[in-house]
Amino acid sequence: MKAVQVVGYHQDLVLNEVPKPEVTGPMDVIVRIGGAGVCRTDLHILEGQWEPKTHVALPYTIGHENAGWVDAIGSSVTNVEVGDKVILHPLITCGLCRACRAGDDVHCEDNQFPGIDTDGGYAEYLKTTARSVVKLDDSLEPAEVAALADAGLTAYHAAAKVAAVTRPGDYCVVIGAGGLGHIGIQVLAAISGVTMIVVDRNPDALALAVDVGADHGIVADGTHIQQVLDITGGRGAEAVLDFVGEGGATAEGVAMLRNAGNYLVVGYGENIDVPTIDIVSSEINFIGNLVGSYNDLGELMALAAQGKVKLHTTEYPLEQFGAALKDLDAGRVRGRAILVP
Amino acid sequence: MKAVQVVGYHQDLVLNEVPKPEVTGPMDVIVRIGGAGVCRTDLHILEGQWEPKTHVALPYTIGHENAGWVDAIGSSVTNVEVGDKVILHPLITCGLCRACRAGDDVHCEDNQFPGIDTDGGYAEYLKTTARSVVKLDDSLEPAEVAALADAGLTAYHAAAKVAAVTRPGDYCVVIGAGGLGHIGIQVLAAISGVTMIVVDRNPDALALAVDVGADHGIVADGTHIQQVLDITGGRGAEAVLDFVGEGGATAEGVAMLRNAGNYLVVGYGENIDVPTIDIVSSEINFIGNLVGSYNDLGELMALAAQGKVKLHTTEYPLEQFGAALKDLDAGRVRGRAILVP
Amino acid sequence: MKAVQVVGYHQDLVLNEVPKPEVTGPMDVIVRIGGAGVCRTDLHILEGQWEPKTHVALPYTIGHENAGWVDAIGSSVTNVEVGDKVILHPLITCGLCRACRAGDDVHCEDNQFPGIDTDGGYAEYLKTTARSVVKLDDSLEPAEVAALADAGLTAYHAAAKVAAVTRPGDYCVVIGAGGLGHIGIQVLAAISGVTMIVVDRNPDALALAVDVGADHGIVADGTHIQQVLDITGGRGAEAVLDFVGEGGATAEGVAMLRNAGNYLVVGYGENIDVPTIDIVSSEINFIGNLVGSYNDLGELMALAAQGKVKLHTTEYPLEQFGAALKDLDAGRVRGRAILVP
Amino acid sequence: MKAVQVVGYHQDLVLNEVPKPEVTGPMDVIVRIGGAGVCRTDLHILEGQWEPKTHVALPYTIGHENAGWVDAIGSSVTNVEVGDKVILHPLITCGLCRACRAGDDVHCEDNQFPGIDTDGGYAEYLKTTARSVVKLDDSLEPAEVAALADAGLTAYHAAAKVAAVTRPGDYCVVIGAGGLGHIGIQVLAAISGVTMIVVDRNPDALALAVDVGADHGIVADGTHIQQVLDITGGRGAEAVLDFVGEGGATAEGVAMLRNAGNYLVVGYGENIDVPTIDIVSSEINFIGNLVGSYNDLGELMALAAQGKVKLHTTEYPLEQFGAALKDLDAGRVRGRAILVP
Repeated sequence: MKAVQVVGYHQDLVLNEVPKPEVTGPMDVIVRIGGAGVCRTDLHILEGQWEPKTHVALPYTIGHENAGWVDAIGSSVTNVEVGDKVILHPLITCGLCRACRAGDDVHCEDNQFPGIDTDGGYAEYLKTTARSVVKLDDSLEPAEVAALADAGLTAYHAAAKVAAVTRPGDYCVVIGAGGLGHIGIQVLAAISGVTMIVVDRNPDALALAVDVGADHGIVADGTHIQQVLDITGGRGAEAVLDFVGEGGATAEGVAMLRNAGNYLVVGYGENIDVPTIDIVSSEINFIGNLVGSYNDLGELMALAAQGKVKLHTTEYPLEQFGAALKDLDAGRVRGRAILVP
Repeated sequence: MKAVQVVGYHQDLVLNEVPKPEVTGPMDVIVRIGGAGVCRTDLHILEGQWEPKTHVALPYTIGHENAGWVDAIGSSVTNVEVGDKVILHPLITCGLCRACRAGDDVHCEDNQFPGIDTDGGYAEYLKTTARSVVKLDDSLEPAEVAALADAGLTAYHAAAKVAAVTRPGDYCVVIGAGGLGHIGIQVLAAISGVTMIVVDRNPDALALAVDVGADHGIVADGTHIQQVLDITGGRGAEAVLDFVGEGGATAEGVAMLRNAGNYLVVGYGENIDVPTIDIVSSEINFIGNLVGSYNDLGELMALAAQGKVKLHTTEYPLEQFGAALKDLDAGRVRGRAILVP
Repeated sequence: MKAVQVVGYHQDLVLNEVPKPEVTGPMDVIVRIGGAGVCRTDLHILEGQWEPKTHVALPYTIGHENAGWVDAIGSSVTNVEVGDKVILHPLITCGLCRACRAGDDVHCEDNQFPGIDTDGGYAEYLKTTARSVVKLDDSLEPAEVAALADAGLTAYHAAAKVAAVTRPGDYCVVIGAGGLGHIGIQVLAAISGVTMIVVDRNPDALALAVDVGADHGIVADGTHIQQVLDITGGRGAEAVLDFVGEGGATAEGVAMLRNAGNYLVVGYGENIDVPTIDIVSSEINFIGNLVGSYNDLGELMALAAQGKVKLHTTEYPLEQFGAALKDLDAGRVRGRAILVP
Repeated sequence: MKAVQVVGYHQDLVLNEVPKPEVTGPMDVIVRIGGAGVCRTDLHILEGQWEPKTHVALPYTIGHENAGWVDAIGSSVTNVEVGDKVILHPLITCGLCRACRAGDDVHCEDNQFPGIDTDGGYAEYLKTTARSVVKLDDSLEPAEVAALADAGLTAYHAAAKVAAVTRPGDYCVVIGAGGLGHIGIQVLAAISGVTMIVVDRNPDALALAVDVGADHGIVADGTHIQQVLDITGGRGAEAVLDFVGEGGATAEGVAMLRNAGNYLVVGYGENIDVPTIDIVSSEINFIGNLVGSYNDLGELMALAAQGKVKLHTTEYPLEQFGAALKDLDAGRVRGRAILVP
C-alpha cells in the first residue's frame, strides 16, 4: 500500500510502497483511511522536535488524526465490524492499568501513539485496536471529522472542563481563535452558559469566533486586558481557556482571571511563572489539558452529529501531501487540511 | 395600596385597600411590583390545600412570582438601590444557618415565603429583604420575567442538575411539555449536550417543545415507552426529567430510565413506588427538586438576558385578577398569565 | 478438580469431579482458589430465586466471592503473572462498552457473573479474565479477604458515595449492623468525618459497630426514629445508608433523613414508596447501589492493607460446604464463612 | 480595655488602654477574647510587609486567630446568644455578593480582616459580626482552638480538597510538617484513605507527623524526590500538598507529582515556574488555597470535637505578648503560642 513516511529529520516526507498492516493480535483493528488530518505537529516531527521523546525508528508513517472504515478485525473484537465507519482515538491503550480502568485512558501506563511513535495514517491503511475506534453516525464522513481526532478532541476536553466548573453568567476568556479555539468556542456555546470573550491578534479570526458563538471578540492590541476587565466589572473572568501558551499569553491570561478562577492550559511554549503568594491570595487554579479520552471522543462525535461542532476542511489527495504541508506552513489552508487516499 | 387578598378558602379573592409595606428592619427591601405571575398554586391555595402547612392568618395577599423596581431599602442594604429593576427569589432566608452559608438557601432553617405564608405580590408593593432581590439586566422587564421567579426557577434548578450529570450524546427524557417543561427544555438546549426526548399527551405542546430545542417529541399514547426504548437502543435514557409526577408518569419514567440513570422528580401527585431490588440492580437514583437557590435565579436571569430562555406571557391589569385565574383554570392562557399593577 | 455444584433447585449441593478450567482466550486468567466466601445469596440460588434471571444451565459451580493465586494466563494478559496473589472482581466485563470505558464496569453491557450465571469459586480453580483480577498486597491472604469481593465491595461502594456527599460534622444513619454494615462503618470511619448513628435490632451487633467506629448505637425498639431526631437536633441525618431495605426500614429511614439529604439504598426486599410531594418539598435523593467497580475493589484492598477494614472469618475445608451453608442458614457463623480448597 | 497595638512598623507592639468595642450595627457581635493565636504573620506585620496591601491606620490592634465568649449582640443577630462559646472566622463578610451566596465567603467582594486591616484579638474584646462566629462544642475551650481559626482553617481547607480528589490507595506527599502540616496530616488521616508521605528537613517534626497519621516520614536530604518515586512505584503521588512554597519546594514537589496529579499550593514565597508543555503533557493541576470558608470552620470544629484534630498550645497572659512573639521568632514555642487576656 501507499504510505507517506518520515525517512530522516530535516528531509522531505517520501511516498513509499509498504506492506499493508495485518491483524496479528486478538484486539487488532485495521482501518482503511478515509481522511488524515495534516497538523502543525507533523511539521515539528520533521524538524526533529519529537525524536528525543519518541526515539521512533525511521522510516515510519506519520499522521495522527485519522478516520476511515474498518477493514479487518482480530478474533476478540466485538465493538466494530468490517465496513463500519470510524474515527480513531489517537492513542492505543492497554485497558488494564488503573487509569484505563478509571476512564482516563489518556494516562494509560502502556500506550502507543500512531503517527508519533508508530505507523500513522498518511497511508491507505492503519493498524490500531478495538479500544481506539469510535463508530461514526451515519451523517458524518471520515474525511470531514478526521481532524477532530486529536486537535478537536483536545479542545473539546478542555472546554468540557470549563463547562463543568462554570455556571450561566460566568465569563470565560478564550485566548486564541485558531483551529483549537474554533472548536473550543463551538463546544462552550453548545454545553455551557458562559459569556465568551475571545482574544486574538487576528480580527478575521475573531469575526469567525463571534460567528460560531463567541459573545465578544477582542483584538490583542495591548488594551485587551483592560477591555476584559471592563467587560467583567473589573473582576476578571471565572475561567481562562488558553489555546496559545506562548508569547506572553499566560501572564496576560492570569491578569484577566478572577479570584477563585480556573486557568485552563492547552497551548504551550512558555512557562507558567506566577508567585505562589498570588496563587494563594487569589486562590486560582491552573488546570493542565492533554487530549481527551475515548469517551470524550464519542461525546465530540455526538456534538458533530448534532451539527453543533463543525470544521472547515480542505481535502488533498494523499499523493499531494507535500502541497498540503507547504500550504499549512505558509498559512494558506482554510480550516484544516485533510489527506484523502 | 391595592392588594388582592385571600379572605377565606373556597371563596373568591378580594381586591382590598391595605397599608403600603414599610421598611422596619435593616435588610428590608420594598419592591414596587411590575409583574406577578399567576400560578396553579394560587388555585390550590384558594382550595385550602396549603392551609394545613402554612396556617397563614387571613386575609393575606397572594402572589409568589414577583418582579419590579426597588422602592425603599433598609439601613444595611448594600446590593440594590432605589429604582433598580429586580426579580424576587421566592423565599426570604436568614443568611446565617449552615444551608444559607452553603449556597443552599432554599433549605434555610428559618424562611418565609411571600404569597404563601406571608403577604405576596398581587399588589402594588411587596416587602422582602436584600437577600432575595436579583438585579435585572437592562434588556429584561419585570413583567416579562416575573413568572421565572418560581416555576421557571424550579425548572432551571432541575435541568441544571441534569446538565451536571450527563454528557453530550446522553439521552434525557423530559416528561411534560407544559410551563415548567418548556423552560427546562430551553435550559437543557442551552447548557447541555443531551439528546432530548419530550413526552406529552398534547401534540401542540410537543411541536412547541421541538421548536425550542427538543430533538424528539413523542405523544404519550401508550406506545411511548417503547418509542423511547427504540430511540435509545433499548437501553433507556441516562436521565428522566419528570415535570408531571402523577397519573402513572413515574412508573413509565422508570421504565424509560437506563441502568445507572438519574430520575429527576419535579412534578408531584403520586408516589414513587419502586422495589428496592430494582433500584439496587439497576443502580438508579431518584433526585428531588425544589425551587432553585438565589444564585440559580441569577443564572437563569443570565440565560434570559442572553435570549436563551424565553417565556410567552399574557398580561392582565391587577384589577382583572379574577379573569386571569379563571382563564388559567380553564386552560385559556397562552404561556403564563401576569398581573400588572 | 473438585467443585461444589448446583445440580437442581431445592436440592443439596454436590461435590463433583470436573475438568480443571483452561485458558482458551487471550485475556483468560485461571485462578487457584485460596478462599471462597459463603454468602446468603448462595442459599437463595438453591431456593431457585435466581433461576428466572440467569437461566444458568445445571450443573454449575457456585461461589461468587473469590480470591487465590494466578495459575495460568492467556497470551494478552499483562497485568498479572502466574503465582500472583489476587482477589477477583465478581463480574467478568467486556472492556469495550461506554460504561466499561468510563470506569463504571459494573454496568458493562456484556458481562458474566461467576458463581451466578457461570462457574464460580467453590472449587479448586476458577476461570476469569485479566480485567477481573486485583493483585493483593503482601500483607493480605486470599482466604482473609475473599468475602470482601462482593459483600464488602458493595458496602465500600455505597459508603464511599456517602463520604463524597458529606462533610465533617454531618450525620449518617447506618441501618443494619450485619456483615455489610460492619464493612460500611469501617469505611466511613476511615474516609469520612460523619458522625455515625447505627440502628439495629441486635444490641450485640451495635456494640461491635461502636467498637469499629460508630458514634452512636441505637436499638431499633420503636423509639429509634425519635432518638435519631434527638441526636440530630430534630433535623434528621444528612445521609442514611440502608443495608436492610425491608421490614419497614425504608419508611423509617426516610423519617430519619434531613431535608436535602441522601438515602443510600443497598439492602432490598420492600419498595421505596414515598409521595413525590415529599421528595420534592424536602428535596431528598434516593441513591441506588450495586456492587463496586474494579477500581473500587482496588481501593477497598488498599484500606484492608492499611488495616482500616477488617473482616472476621471462619474457615471451612471445601468438602465441608454443607456444614458452612447450614451454619450460615442457622446464624451460627461468626463473621463470614470461607471455603478453603 | 487592654489591647496590644501596632503603633509603628519596625517598632515593638504596645499594650494600650482603649475603649471597649460596642454594638453599632444590627449584625454586630462583641466577643470577649478567650485566646488569640500568635502567628508568624504578626511578625511580618511588624516588619511592614502588609502595610502596602492594607494601608491600615495606626495604631490598631493585631491578632487574627481568635476565640472567646459572646459578650453582646446586635438587634438582628439570631445565631448566637450572649455567653456562647465561639471561634471566629477570620474574615467579616458581606453575605450579599455572589461569592458569599455560593458558600465561598472567603472571596467576598466586600470583606474586612480583623487583626490585619481592622482591630483584632490581642485584646480583651473584639468586634465582629454574626456571620463570623461559629459556636463551639461543649468539649472545646476557646484558648485551645483559637489557633485553628486561621492557620488550622487553611490547612483544613486544602486537605479537604485533597480528600475530594483522591481515593484510598492514592499517595499524597505533604511538604512541610510544621504547624499547618501538622493539622493537614490529621485532617487527611481523618477523612481520606491516602497513603501520606511527609517530607521535611526536621526529623523531629517527621516523627511527630508519623505519630499523628503520616505513613512515611522522609527527611529532605537531597534523596527525598527519589525516595518518593521509589515508594510510589516510580510514578509519583496523585497529590502534593505543599505547606512550604519556597526554597525550591515547588520544583521538587512537581518532580514528585504523578501524571494527572494535583499540586495544592498553600505555603508561599517562590514562584511556580513550570513549562506549559510539562503541564500539558503530564496534565497536572496547580490548585491555590486561601483560608477556608465559614462552613469549613464549622467542619474543622466538628473534627476537633471528635478528637481527630488536636493542637498543642502554650498559653501566655496577654501582657506577655512580647515574650510570646520573641519565643515564636526564636523557634522556642512548642505548638502554637496563645495569648489569654
